[in-house]
Amino acid sequence: MNFASDNAGGVHPRIMAALAAANEGHVPSYGTDRITRAAQDRVRELFDAPEAAVHFVATGTAANALALSLLSPGWGKVFCHSDAHVQTSEAGAPEFFSGGAKLIPVPGTGGRITPETLAEALHVHGRDAVHAGRNAALTLTNATEWGTVYGPDEVAALAALARAQGLGVHMDGARFANALASLDVSPADLTWRAGVDILSLGGTKNGCMGVEAVVIFDPALSEEFEFRRKRAGALVSKHRYLAAQVLAWLEGELWLQLARHANAMAHELALGLARLPGVRIDQRVESNTVFATIPRALHRRAGASGICYHLWPHTQDAKDEEPVSIRLVCGWDTRLDDVTAALRALA
Amino acid sequence: MNFASDNAGGVHPRIMAALAAANEGHVPSYGTDRITRAAQDRVRELFDAPEAAVHFVATGTAANALALSLLSPGWGKVFCHSDAHVQTSEAGAPEFFSGGAKLIPVPGTGGRITPETLAEALHVHGRDAVHAGRNAALTLTNATEWGTVYGPDEVAALAALARAQGLGVHMDGARFANALASLDVSPADLTWRAGVDILSLGGTKNGCMGVEAVVIFDPALSEEFEFRRKRAGALVSKHRYLAAQVLAWLEGELWLQLARHANAMAHELALGLARLPGVRIDQRVESNTVFATIPRALHRRAGASGICYHLWPHTQDAKDEEPVSIRLVCGWDTRLDDVTAALRALA
Amino acid sequence: MNFASDNAGGVHPRIMAALAAANEGHVPSYGTDRITRAAQDRVRELFDAPEAAVHFVATGTAANALALSLLSPGWGKVFCHSDAHVQTSEAGAPEFFSGGAKLIPVPGTGGRITPETLAEALHVHGRDAVHAGRNAALTLTNATEWGTVYGPDEVAALAALARAQGLGVHMDGARFANALASLDVSPADLTWRAGVDILSLGGTKNGCMGVEAVVIFDPALSEEFEFRRKRAGALVSKHRYLAAQVLAWLEGELWLQLARHANAMAHELALGLARLPGVRIDQRVESNTVFATIPRALHRRAGASGICYHLWPHTQDAKDEEPVSIRLVCGWDTRLDDVTAALRALA
Amino acid sequence: MNFASDNAGGVHPRIMAALAAANEGHVPSYGTDRITRAAQDRVRELFDAPEAAVHFVATGTAANALALSLLSPGWGKVFCHSDAHVQTSEAGAPEFFSGGAKLIPVPGTGGRITPETLAEALHVHGRDAVHAGRNAALTLTNATEWGTVYGPDEVAALAALARAQGLGVHMDGARFANALASLDVSPADLTWRAGVDILSLGGTKNGCMGVEAVVIFDPALSEEFEFRRKRAGALVSKHRYLAAQVLAWLEGELWLQLARHANAMAHELALGLARLPGVRIDQRVESNTVFATIPRALHRRAGASGICYHLWPHTQDAKDEEPVSIRLVCGWDTRLDDVTAALRALA
Repeated sequence: MNFASDNAGGVHPRIMAALAAANEGHVPSYGTDRITRAAQDRVRELFDAPEAAVHFVATGTAANALALSLLSPGWGKVFCHSDAHVQTSEAGAPEFFSGGAKLIPVPGTGGRITPETLAEALHVHGRDAVHAGRNAALTLTNATEWGTVYGPDEVAALAALARAQGLGVHMDGARFANALASLDVSPADLTWRAGVDILSLGGTKNGCMGVEAVVIFDPALSEEFEFRRKRAGALVSKHRYLAAQVLAWLEGELWLQLARHANAMAHELALGLARLPGVRIDQRVESNTVFATIPRALHRRAGASGICYHLWPHTQDAKDEEPVSIRLVCGWDTRLDDVTAALRALA
Repeated sequence: MNFASDNAGGVHPRIMAALAAANEGHVPSYGTDRITRAAQDRVRELFDAPEAAVHFVATGTAANALALSLLSPGWGKVFCHSDAHVQTSEAGAPEFFSGGAKLIPVPGTGGRITPETLAEALHVHGRDAVHAGRNAALTLTNATEWGTVYGPDEVAALAALARAQGLGVHMDGARFANALASLDVSPADLTWRAGVDILSLGGTKNGCMGVEAVVIFDPALSEEFEFRRKRAGALVSKHRYLAAQVLAWLEGELWLQLARHANAMAHELALGLARLPGVRIDQRVESNTVFATIPRALHRRAGASGICYHLWPHTQDAKDEEPVSIRLVCGWDTRLDDVTAALRALA
Repeated sequence: MNFASDNAGGVHPRIMAALAAANEGHVPSYGTDRITRAAQDRVRELFDAPEAAVHFVATGTAANALALSLLSPGWGKVFCHSDAHVQTSEAGAPEFFSGGAKLIPVPGTGGRITPETLAEALHVHGRDAVHAGRNAALTLTNATEWGTVYGPDEVAALAALARAQGLGVHMDGARFANALASLDVSPADLTWRAGVDILSLGGTKNGCMGVEAVVIFDPALSEEFEFRRKRAGALVSKHRYLAAQVLAWLEGELWLQLARHANAMAHELALGLARLPGVRIDQRVESNTVFATIPRALHRRAGASGICYHLWPHTQDAKDEEPVSIRLVCGWDTRLDDVTAALRALA
Repeated sequence: MNFASDNAGGVHPRIMAALAAANEGHVPSYGTDRITRAAQDRVRELFDAPEAAVHFVATGTAANALALSLLSPGWGKVFCHSDAHVQTSEAGAPEFFSGGAKLIPVPGTGGRITPETLAEALHVHGRDAVHAGRNAALTLTNATEWGTVYGPDEVAALAALARAQGLGVHMDGARFANALASLDVSPADLTWRAGVDILSLGGTKNGCMGVEAVVIFDPALSEEFEFRRKRAGALVSKHRYLAAQVLAWLEGELWLQLARHANAMAHELALGLARLPGVRIDQRVESNTVFATIPRALHRRAGASGICYHLWPHTQDAKDEEPVSIRLVCGWDTRLDDVTAALRALA
């Protein structure tokens, strides 16, 4: 009963099978192979973006940092939610890749930047001038770090504000499939049609072994990306094994099925938790993550029952008998039985 | 009647004379000369810090960014006031010099971090871990960007909090002389005795042509500083002309006299402004800067009378008839006549 | 009949099986899992280095650049062979990761630095001073880019020269297994006992899907490595899949068997080629790579027969009827039949 | 009798007087003042380049590193002479400012790259591809580190080769005035008309206190320059004191007079040295520097007589009675009496 992270999950059998199938003979390296081209074409097709450049890397941090480095010079400002992964959990990767960009944290409940909080941040920090630095990018996480999602209109409204101040727009889609499944909109509507320039499209948390696509809707940025990826040590040599994951993951809408399942499990879990005495669900569940505050006794019972999750935020200093705030993540491989068993153990 | 900036002021005649006097014959370059050694010794003596390493650079931004790069790696976190010069006005220099450090803005009224706001920021952002990054430094500006000052006890309290979380302590002393003159304490008490590891000691705003000292109380950091300064293009070749400024500036307490004068002019200006109808002094004047909110009509009269100052913050969007918030800076060369004339013109 | 690169090869079945076997249930992410610990222990055991820090990354460029960044600051000098991968084929990764280190190319026939060429390079470029920069590291590729190997005594002699000038020693072991198999010495003798501080141990070219170990013989450097790896986007989340490859690769000496096979195929290929009229073998074959100069007609016949290899160097401008210089790489999966068929086609 | 460096010299009286004259009243800071505009206009006029962007910084290393960072990304290659200041004496500044560019040393006698050596270097290293990195820039030092000069035709030939491979062209003109005075050509002919994109125009070694102009013939690069300069801590606040130096230095051809004088002194010195028994002049004297190999006894006599110069290269390990190779630099303030006295002391 592991709800610690979708990184703790395994690889979907169809993706594992695709890796085995790709393991045949000699194939050109560094992304010049046929499987890579097929995977790139498939992504372009799904996003209805025939001109987009599509590149694969092995980690989400590499995807985000490379994407942001295309939008921001070292003297640029990148506006992000205060709880964004790029701000809290990448050890300065965006700063490193861009050569020194400054991340400007923007507040917002439920992990979401709103037009109001963005406008205020732009008002205070959005001076584009030599001393203040260049207005460079807005990055939105979708689904957010708090499991909420931005719909196409919300993305469009924020992107419009950003563009009016000269910012490019990046979307950190480590859980993009979960957002898409939750919203039931098209990939294009949630990205370039809403004003997104570059998407980090996450496969790893959603059943892959380790692959993220960087989808660059403005193909002019692609050449620089390739140099940046290589000098960052992020160009994988036996590239077919990245691409084979992507192909299998997208095949027959597997990615959306897996995301829908993970989201459904989170809803189920939240419903069950909400029924327990003293439990408060802290965020509306809109994707595959549940945030709750639970009584201390329940927390102890969870530990004793082998139910894994993280305290969230990590930094809370819960006193002995106070309730604790926790995050539970469901994945493509969370079984309904696990949810039921966990709820039963806690009841 | 220029109150725009202490950077708009000239060079004190005694410092100009020292430059002329240093202009004699051939002298070893790059800081190996006798004048440089004398200036370094003089700084050490003033700070009662015989072991300190003292280096000179031409700009405050170079001083700050070099100092912070000694304390923070690229994956480090630097806690600073939200309005700190390093955060708002150096175009990402600390990020550049450190190779990607992340500046964490800490709030606080009057430009001052308090033990409470620092503790809160450390609680939320002070996780020292691979994903979160390294706790690296606290930087305090003294006098602050809002003209207030930290006394030795305040510095010590903040430094103690910082040290407890593994942070080194930097002081941005672009207006250190003004703080010192205001507090009437010793340089040592306001720095290393209170827990400061590195001080950027500003001469430029206080009557020099362009020189800042970086005073490194832990001399072990000095060797790395010299490499960092050189590769940053900040090692001046005809170095005697930096050092000669410093010597003359410190000679006979000139630096403190100039600072005291600037502070006194600011007090005078604030007193006069406060008497004008509709004017509000926004910060207690503790050094050489005055922050006020004035009626729109007064602002127009100031413009018509040739009284220069900056809107502060730059970003206010004052509507037509609303009051405006302004910053007025007095310098070593602000004459009482200027202040009186300005006040008369506004009355 | 693909001799283009050992990156074009597949994954060994036992390694693929290990990946499938690791795909069971939930496992902690980011390298805190049991499989990772086992793989780290196994590497330490093989190298007789119980204190070494062992970390895994997905690419050789990340391994090399991270390793060198532990040894060289941004103002450091890294001595490497003029044809070293870090110098010619990593798009500036070592410079990027270190924050600006300068690679000093050292000549030497057959891809090998000699004590003479190193001494000369140190004489000319080895001034450790503020303007000249810091003496930081020597990096040796073993097996070299020209398929030759350094034995333990040669490594020791070069390392001793390096240490005497304050340089740390890195070994780029993208083909370390091939060198080891060729020399029949122990991993320890070829590395830390000969003065190597950090080894990039390559699995990818030798039957893995994509994994390189960074073996840091001085464990004090390990903590900084973890931050550097994360902020470079090189920390893989589903880490068990890196580690499982390593375990299977080392299990029962598989890595050496594969390397021995690749080396043997290269010898076979070179012997056959040498018998063809007009062919010259350009380097003594000491690992899995063959360098030859062949008549133009033979080159055309190879193309027509579907025999793949690279012109080497890439930059030769062979005129129409001149001989061409080529590189042929054998891998773990090169079959004797392929070699025989290729030789027959060319005969 | 100091021939150690033109950095050891003082400030010309007319320049010192201009600094004093500029020290009047309040003036806008950061280069927005009238004196700065006048100096920029004057440079544009002298170079017959009305569109050029002209910026001032305090050191030659900052000028060079900023200029190269406009031409080369972090994955770029910068071709320079093996003895170029940017390669040997700036502690990695070009690498730092560009975010990791790789300097490719090109050989050539007398400090000069020739079309042949450049063509060879481009042949071997000029592959513009993801692994190899981007072809970015050629930088020429004029006058060179060995006191020789490139004439307009030589610059044009090298620039044409460079452009054909996609390289921009930078000129390190730390001693540009000496080259110009030696060649008696126009500033425009020696720079943009010959294909130079950016010039570092050195004032410091030629009678200024500390100022270098970066002349960007393609003004589109100017905006990025301003951000880069600020975040490098190289934007001087009391900017009038940089500009005043430039104005006085250029006024009435002072810069060329000073350079002609320094060159003449070097010729005189070389002529005298050449007459001494056992002395060999190692480079044709084309600007203000003399390279000679002298008997050991003469070297000792020079030391005893207080004649200062540097061993060149620094790294020679002269054995006891072997001749030594030395560099003697004449400056704007070298007096004929000094030269005569030195020669007499050595005779």
